[in-house]
Amino acid sequence: MQARIKSIIETRLWSRFIIGLIILNAVVLGLETDSQVMANFGGPLKFFDTVILALFVVEIALRLFAYRGAFFRDAWSIFDFTVVAFALVPATGPLQVLRALRILRVMRMISLVPSLRRVVGGLIAALPGMASIVVLIALVFYVFSVMATNLFGLAFPEWFGSLGAAGYTLFQIMTLESWSMGIVRPVMEVYPYAWAFFIPFILSTTYAVLNLFIGVIVSAMQHGDTEASQQHADEGRSEILREIRALRVEVAELRQARREEN
Amino acid sequence: MQARIKSIIETRLWSRFIIGLIILNAVVLGLETDSQVMANFGGPLKFFDTVILALFVVEIALRLFAYRGAFFRDAWSIFDFTVVAFALVPATGPLQVLRALRILRVMRMISLVPSLRRVVGGLIAALPGMASIVVLIALVFYVFSVMATNLFGLAFPEWFGSLGAAGYTLFQIMTLESWSMGIVRPVMEVYPYAWAFFIPFILSTTYAVLNLFIGVIVSAMQHGDTEASQQHADEGRSEILREIRALRVEVAELRQARREEN
Amino acid sequence: MQARIKSIIETRLWSRFIIGLIILNAVVLGLETDSQVMANFGGPLKFFDTVILALFVVEIALRLFAYRGAFFRDAWSIFDFTVVAFALVPATGPLQVLRALRILRVMRMISLVPSLRRVVGGLIAALPGMASIVVLIALVFYVFSVMATNLFGLAFPEWFGSLGAAGYTLFQIMTLESWSMGIVRPVMEVYPYAWAFFIPFILSTTYAVLNLFIGVIVSAMQHGDTEASQQHADEGRSEILREIRALRVEVAELRQARREEN
Amino acid sequence: MQARIKSIIETRLWSRFIIGLIILNAVVLGLETDSQVMANFGGPLKFFDTVILALFVVEIALRLFAYRGAFFRDAWSIFDFTVVAFALVPATGPLQVLRALRILRVMRMISLVPSLRRVVGGLIAALPGMASIVVLIALVFYVFSVMATNLFGLAFPEWFGSLGAAGYTLFQIMTLESWSMGIVRPVMEVYPYAWAFFIPFILSTTYAVLNLFIGVIVSAMQHGDTEASQQHADEGRSEILREIRALRVEVAELRQARREEN
Repeated sequence: MQARIKSIIETRLWSRFIIGLIILNAVVLGLETDSQVMANFGGPLKFFDTVILALFVVEIALRLFAYRGAFFRDAWSIFDFTVVAFALVPATGPLQVLRALRILRVMRMISLVPSLRRVVGGLIAALPGMASIVVLIALVFYVFSVMATNLFGLAFPEWFGSLGAAGYTLFQIMTLESWSMGIVRPVMEVYPYAWAFFIPFILSTTYAVLNLFIGVIVSAMQHGDTEASQQHADEGRSEILREIRALRVEVAELRQARREEN
Repeated sequence: MQARIKSIIETRLWSRFIIGLIILNAVVLGLETDSQVMANFGGPLKFFDTVILALFVVEIALRLFAYRGAFFRDAWSIFDFTVVAFALVPATGPLQVLRALRILRVMRMISLVPSLRRVVGGLIAALPGMASIVVLIALVFYVFSVMATNLFGLAFPEWFGSLGAAGYTLFQIMTLESWSMGIVRPVMEVYPYAWAFFIPFILSTTYAVLNLFIGVIVSAMQHGDTEASQQHADEGRSEILREIRALRVEVAELRQARREEN
Repeated sequence: MQARIKSIIETRLWSRFIIGLIILNAVVLGLETDSQVMANFGGPLKFFDTVILALFVVEIALRLFAYRGAFFRDAWSIFDFTVVAFALVPATGPLQVLRALRILRVMRMISLVPSLRRVVGGLIAALPGMASIVVLIALVFYVFSVMATNLFGLAFPEWFGSLGAAGYTLFQIMTLESWSMGIVRPVMEVYPYAWAFFIPFILSTTYAVLNLFIGVIVSAMQHGDTEASQQHADEGRSEILREIRALRVEVAELRQARREEN
Repeated sequence: MQARIKSIIETRLWSRFIIGLIILNAVVLGLETDSQVMANFGGPLKFFDTVILALFVVEIALRLFAYRGAFFRDAWSIFDFTVVAFALVPATGPLQVLRALRILRVMRMISLVPSLRRVVGGLIAALPGMASIVVLIALVFYVFSVMATNLFGLAFPEWFGSLGAAGYTLFQIMTLESWSMGIVRPVMEVYPYAWAFFIPFILSTTYAVLNLFIGVIVSAMQHGDTEASQQHADEGRSEILREIRALRVEVAELRQARREEN
């Protein structure tokens, strides 16, 4: 029974059926954002949504039954489970925000379409190589946030009143959004030397982020480049080696013949 | 007759004549945007414009006659045809916007100047390699648009009132234009935790777009790099192989001479 | 006499003296921007400035005398000549703007300091490779400027009233500066479908500019990379070839000895 | 005694203890930014801060005693010394800003965690290669600042009133922040041809900065790429050479045998 369900849910047809369901669900959730559509077809849409949810629950249940403990060892399965579980929590009171998270189900597309899965896998695989520089940027952010809170917190509570506010404002400054006209020029009217705080921050963080990018480019390059070109060079070299070895055999035979002769 | 027209429109002189016409047309359409020029020379300019259009129609007709069905198998020909056809539609009432599209004729330059054609060809050739990541970004946009409409639509109808408005606003945020001072700070005044929605959106989309770019760089690199350097390496290797083979011939002759001797 | 002057102005000491003069001139011109300094030391500074200018005129005259016609065949010499000539034009009336151009003399540093000269040479050398894509971007700008003038010129004369204004506004949009909050949202209030004009413009121009950058990176890569690594590979290969040729000589001698024997 | 202290402070345990102290200090300094926390736990936090500072002083003293003069030859040690020394200066009156610099102690993490030390080392190592282009950008900034002060200083004292103000405004323009809507459009209302000053500035500085980045990418590439692939190629080549040399030995023996025979 367990093996039979496994063989069914691993067919191509089944995964296409689930992809179809997800697309349908995406369209339904998209239509539900339109208040006029909701006024006219609100009932059927909600019913449809519930049916699709029920099918998702059944699908997860089948996979749980088929794979048992192995189900929770796959990161994508846990993602699928969490996303569907969200929908079953009664979205009332403070949890009403969960209703908006229903659309995350559409992200399940990524685990079902191989090319998307590969792309996301690649994006995630590049992250560990960035760990050191991300920690460094986080350290710089923390240090500058504390300094900004101490230096400008009293005069500009909205931007630098707390550690969180200062971190957010510094993130905005790092993205260069309105950093001068919006933030630094007003600050400089109170503290004329504020540029000596913000310009080093901009230069150091953008330089660090740039190096983060360069690291990713260089490592992506080496993977692709070296493998292809080294294989080509190796083939050329082994052809040369084959020729030389054949030559050694011939010379060895020549010596052997001469030795026998004498 | 068909062959003769073909031989004429494939000459260098003819394509130069058409390029000249297009540049002239570009200048005329540029001058027509100036109301003072139009007040003084409006009549002649419009007449001139009509003459050029007539010549374009004749040129397309000649190509249609010369190539028949093959005409519509070339993407550039279809572009030329569409652009000229626009000009023949009576641009009145709601179609008045078509008048503004007349300038697209100048884009025909691309299909006529080889170096431009090559550049645009290269730009378009790089697109299929991006398909997966573009689909991924589209998916992320759809999911975040639906969420934003649900979460912030009621409080900020101008920015997140409908799926389209939310998609446009998220595109603006992805380009980092006024994302904080213009959009997120006002939203945070109503929903203080809105940053937990927008900062992950910014980080994930800019990271995905960055990887899109890196992919293009890496593939451009490999094309250019590998071809040139592999050809060089191959030439070096075949020189070595030539020498070794000549050596084998000599050794073989040596053995042959010894065998004959005995 | 001509040869003697040539030998003097080509010494290291002379070029250091000129570099010193330029730095001094830069400081003087910098101090002249301060109104308080001008109130106290305006006279001496202006006198000093005139003395330095006179020395520059003498230097250019010496070089003109030493190199004659060859002087005007060097792009840097023409630059030096133009910059010094500016200063001799009486900067009155509408030509008063020329006074501000005096500081361009400091740019002469580039032609005198070898490392700067190399960097600027590299920056300029990369330009021809970009010609096609720059022409393409210019074409796209022209086409979109004419269209924008026709479509939005009447409603937004300040931004799209003339070809020049539209070109400037589109340049601003391409740099993503206030493109949405500043320009496109106000336009969309009159023409709700304006996004269908601006978003393709942003995507196509940023994509083209990105490819411009990639082209520069790839060609910079190949220069640096290929030269170093090919030279290394060539050395390895010629060592192998030397060995093989020595071997052929030995085998040939072996055959020669056998032939003589018989 | 000196050797004993050295052996203690070079143990892994000791460096972990210091890392722990630094993290604790970071948390304390972070908590001190919160006015509510300070109202309730201000006393204990300040006491705790003083204890940690005392431990840092002891640690620096031990290292000074252990390494003597060598202490000041290591850049990281000088950094540690400076940061701790800041905290001992009485932060009153105009020196009150030093209080905010206490958080810089957290930067000591970089010298203690090897992976961070390597990343920062890499970032700093890339700087000398950029020297020429940074000098060039500084030169362009100085020249354009002087020109902007002369041209626009009177009409826009806040943006271009002095060399410093003009330099800051040009830095803002180079980062493309509000360059058009915020600065250039208002300037163009007074000087309609101001775009002819600012657009060349934007194009030349962004092009120079781009080339700065490309230089970093290319050099990072060559380090990583060339070393790995050249080593691989060298191994292939030395295998070929070994084979050829063995062959020469055999041929030489063949000749030797023949010579002895006669």
